[in-house]
Amino acid sequence: MKARPVVSVAGGAICTPPEATMAEAVGRGLASAGAILVCGGGSGVMEAACRGAIEAGGWTVGFLPGTQIEMGNPFLSLAVPTGLTESRNVLVVRAGRALIAIGGGYGTLSEIALGLKLGRRVIGLSTWSAADGRNEPAGILRARSPEEAVELALEGGLA
Amino acid sequence: MKARPVVSVAGGAICTPPEATMAEAVGRGLASAGAILVCGGGSGVMEAACRGAIEAGGWTVGFLPGTQIEMGNPFLSLAVPTGLTESRNVLVVRAGRALIAIGGGYGTLSEIALGLKLGRRVIGLSTWSAADGRNEPAGILRARSPEEAVELALEGGLA
Amino acid sequence: MKARPVVSVAGGAICTPPEATMAEAVGRGLASAGAILVCGGGSGVMEAACRGAIEAGGWTVGFLPGTQIEMGNPFLSLAVPTGLTESRNVLVVRAGRALIAIGGGYGTLSEIALGLKLGRRVIGLSTWSAADGRNEPAGILRARSPEEAVELALEGGLA
Amino acid sequence: MKARPVVSVAGGAICTPPEATMAEAVGRGLASAGAILVCGGGSGVMEAACRGAIEAGGWTVGFLPGTQIEMGNPFLSLAVPTGLTESRNVLVVRAGRALIAIGGGYGTLSEIALGLKLGRRVIGLSTWSAADGRNEPAGILRARSPEEAVELALEGGLA
Repeated sequence: MKARPVVSVAGGAICTPPEATMAEAVGRGLASAGAILVCGGGSGVMEAACRGAIEAGGWTVGFLPGTQIEMGNPFLSLAVPTGLTESRNVLVVRAGRALIAIGGGYGTLSEIALGLKLGRRVIGLSTWSAADGRNEPAGILRARSPEEAVELALEGGLA
Repeated sequence: MKARPVVSVAGGAICTPPEATMAEAVGRGLASAGAILVCGGGSGVMEAACRGAIEAGGWTVGFLPGTQIEMGNPFLSLAVPTGLTESRNVLVVRAGRALIAIGGGYGTLSEIALGLKLGRRVIGLSTWSAADGRNEPAGILRARSPEEAVELALEGGLA
Repeated sequence: MKARPVVSVAGGAICTPPEATMAEAVGRGLASAGAILVCGGGSGVMEAACRGAIEAGGWTVGFLPGTQIEMGNPFLSLAVPTGLTESRNVLVVRAGRALIAIGGGYGTLSEIALGLKLGRRVIGLSTWSAADGRNEPAGILRARSPEEAVELALEGGLA
Repeated sequence: MKARPVVSVAGGAICTPPEATMAEAVGRGLASAGAILVCGGGSGVMEAACRGAIEAGGWTVGFLPGTQIEMGNPFLSLAVPTGLTESRNVLVVRAGRALIAIGGGYGTLSEIALGLKLGRRVIGLSTWSAADGRNEPAGILRARSPEEAVELALEGGLA
């Protein structure tokens, strides 16, 4: 048995229409490549990405901050009610070989930082810049399109 | 889209051959009924249950205590390296609508207790008795076979 | 600098008057011995133990399941709003060199089981019996009084 | 009984001498003001801050990522071996009314982001800039000295 690659997606629970469009394309791309999509299970970017993945026949997992499974978006193959509030962000980041961040606020920034800290491949689509003017490498791989984001996330093959 | 039912399985990382046989039958039964099997991702009862599920074409998820995905058993559709050590037990219990406990030691006892605390349906197959002589309802549903355990876990339909 | 010994106290958020009396004496005893008392920060056994400790000039820490510091009992030197719901039980158990369990329900049982699993010294005062008729050592040290419970918890000196 | 204010301190486990000097002054200032200092319990900025606090007669708490209490720095009044790896960052941030970040890498950035997300007062001393050119308020209060950082953290009184 060969496990499928896992990719995490982060982004705001409230997002702009262009962000939702990008997220949906990312989800579709991940599913088409046979990858499992992991996210925080919420609305906005998360829901759009899951919708894209499910419509392309893929698998989606949501780590919900609360304890009620009903709070997950309707496009989750598996909703895990973690009851860990923001600590569930670490689970989202740890679960994937790569993290695609789309837009987002402080929660997404915390996931980007954790991804870089944990050595995950972090891909940004019009999201935060972690650069701080202290001559530290920014760390985020910038993608110019959803397709490029998926490609960067799966680089090195599907294992 | 209709999410599949999720059932948690708990038991020792080291187990007896009869426990492994029961676990494998439980995994097979859950997969045949279309349920997702969630566990701690380790060896022993967990591995046997996952093997049974995968061989029957099912889906398995393991919440690993550590940070290395390689530590999961080879029959996981999705291995989540939580880095939460024993706190991952709570995730295992929360993820499922029911918990099937097979044999097991103190770790399994903690999952049984959490399952009862959180209002999950807890089914025991030759495992701990939570009875304490204090006139409190024991809470655990006793199954006499793997088939009965699966039935009790899915009672009320697959939703 | 020499850190003070840390002892965890577990028990129901709702408890009987005799349990509260025992808990208060345990708190008083721990504080008098210079130990820090760690608990889940709630009412019932937890509050009674903290009251005893504070009145004896001791230090108390509560790991609250929620995110609101106001939910802690009024006898906490430090209230930590973990936002981890039941996963905070693991913190309570891990923080101490020993766990004193007084009365309690399924939540307390989960802490007893975790304490035994993690190799903590677990002391019981009219609480659960973990014995299961499977010839496994029960593991819990039975105390006949709050004073004996404190003594057993601090055995081996204050380091 | 009136609980003392709690302030979290974040920063690299490896730090420059000027950062250590700033951290020590922050610790001293917090202790002098009667505040409890909470941190990740490690070396570098965390250890320097704890040393300053302890030398000024204060109280320090360290939430260690691992399970071994011995891994904490020597200036902790209470070391909590969380076993939560990076998820312990959330505890550090949640515990305080304010977060003072000094220098630091991606781990510190994740704590800054979580602090802003959770509505904590976040004070920066030569640390990351969260500004991203997207017209979002940066959120971090910039302090020009350790004394100003302590002042900003305790603003509004000690309650």
